[in-house]
Amino acid sequence: MDPLATTLMVLDYAAVAVFGASGALAAARRKHDIITFGFFAAITGVGGGTLRDLLIEAPVFWVRTNATLLICIGAALLVWLTSRRWFAGQALLWFDAAGLAAYSTYGAAKALAFGVAPVPAFAMGVMTACVGGIIRDVLAGEPSILMRPELYVTAAALAAGLLVGLSVLGFGGWIAVALAFAAGFGLRGTAIARGWSLPAYRD
Amino acid sequence: MDPLATTLMVLDYAAVAVFGASGALAAARRKHDIITFGFFAAITGVGGGTLRDLLIEAPVFWVRTNATLLICIGAALLVWLTSRRWFAGQALLWFDAAGLAAYSTYGAAKALAFGVAPVPAFAMGVMTACVGGIIRDVLAGEPSILMRPELYVTAAALAAGLLVGLSVLGFGGWIAVALAFAAGFGLRGTAIARGWSLPAYRD
Amino acid sequence: MDPLATTLMVLDYAAVAVFGASGALAAARRKHDIITFGFFAAITGVGGGTLRDLLIEAPVFWVRTNATLLICIGAALLVWLTSRRWFAGQALLWFDAAGLAAYSTYGAAKALAFGVAPVPAFAMGVMTACVGGIIRDVLAGEPSILMRPELYVTAAALAAGLLVGLSVLGFGGWIAVALAFAAGFGLRGTAIARGWSLPAYRD
Repeated sequence: MDPLATTLMVLDYAAVAVFGASGALAAARRKHDIITFGFFAAITGVGGGTLRDLLIEAPVFWVRTNATLLICIGAALLVWLTSRRWFAGQALLWFDAAGLAAYSTYGAAKALAFGVAPVPAFAMGVMTACVGGIIRDVLAGEPSILMRPELYVTAAALAAGLLVGLSVLGFGGWIAVALAFAAGFGLRGTAIARGWSLPAYRD
Repeated sequence: MDPLATTLMVLDYAAVAVFGASGALAAARRKHDIITFGFFAAITGVGGGTLRDLLIEAPVFWVRTNATLLICIGAALLVWLTSRRWFAGQALLWFDAAGLAAYSTYGAAKALAFGVAPVPAFAMGVMTACVGGIIRDVLAGEPSILMRPELYVTAAALAAGLLVGLSVLGFGGWIAVALAFAAGFGLRGTAIARGWSLPAYRD
Repeated sequence: MDPLATTLMVLDYAAVAVFGASGALAAARRKHDIITFGFFAAITGVGGGTLRDLLIEAPVFWVRTNATLLICIGAALLVWLTSRRWFAGQALLWFDAAGLAAYSTYGAAKALAFGVAPVPAFAMGVMTACVGGIIRDVLAGEPSILMRPELYVTAAALAAGLLVGLSVLGFGGWIAVALAFAAGFGLRGTAIARGWSLPAYRD
């Protein structure tokens, strides 16, 4: 396996773990049982990538392997067994920022590799990063990331847009992946650190 | 391309634009940023047709072309740049009625063309017209069209039912498309003008 | 058709009918019209199996036949025409328990038959049984089964886990189906009768 493919695979598993943990934390906040922890971890961890794979007609990435769901179950167990306070601070927020950048970069790259047109490939990157968390929030009855003013989907859009833009211009491969990931992570990180948001619509 | 196919394609793009605008308006009502406008426009514009295509094993209609999502993004920008009051009155309601009739007719016709059985083809028509708006309402935390007493899903059911019924009876093509669209639009329009609804369940 | 396949098919249709009725009842509780009854019956009856079939790349089970949706429509009409009080007591709860056990067993078995790996096959069983009801609850704006403390998803997990575990160990076929169904139904039944639940997460 070439280094780029390996990097993408590592990004992929890391994002599943981070999003899985964020799903389990949503269950922890509402004091659910271990089965619901696992359900939330799985939905949040694989939700976005599942929709992407269905749309681009790829085999759904976690169906032919045990590893992906076991990572989600492991993340659920970790959150269950440790104190929720471990995760309550900034640490998870930063891991989640990395997951966001990784998933939007990876999702857009995978869509392009499957011959998807540039604009929908960009949308696939955003979706891969955001849809798992949106489903988690809808199921938990919380206002979703979409509804919050903070700059979240925008960071995914920046990463996916850069990956697609650079690839279309002929700078695919390592350069596009590194720049897209760095830009998405940097923007989301700055938003976390400084509380940035986009201007809201005004009548 | 024959005229019937062209008509169906125009219906399709027009419905995407109208539903996209209604998605952006949901974002405007809650004063979101431009990224969320785009997200809502895309989900509302293509949500129903996406589910239909996945279910009938057709390639998802917006994945191999840039045009469809660009229409959604254009609708989002239009709503963002103009005053929301432009859209607040009856005009959008009537455009939405046309989109509803177009999508339910088109969705049922496409399902039949893919060899789907009549009852599920009818369901595909209803879904194509209604699922995008339902996802929009769930994400926005508003009671969905399903939950409101007004006659909305019923108009989609009339259009899809007529298209399928006439096709099964051998009156496919133009006649079925024109009658189904007219009936669906007429019923929804009357409901808007007169506040019609179906009788509710009583214990 | 061999007896095992026939049994699985009967389980499948029975679960569609029971879940369809539970969907229609959600519409009845909120006093909706007959169209919304049908919509809820269909979504609840086929929602979980639809997601399973999309994920395992099987043709979606209700798309090439009229029978499945007609069962849902029949269930909606039955609830509409009879008094809701018929269904308000324990009877539906027990039918639903049977549907839950049937769907989780059947879903896991179908996934294995399509070559899905064991852990995702287990997840497919749980999903088949629970996702229809979850969508129903989200659309109705009620807290979903996931959010309630009672032992529901756990019973599906037991049935799906037994089916997959026994099959992996070489005890597939009748034995696995019978044991998995009995265990899932037994656990859910005990939970109904005694109000059992799993321990909740504590900080």
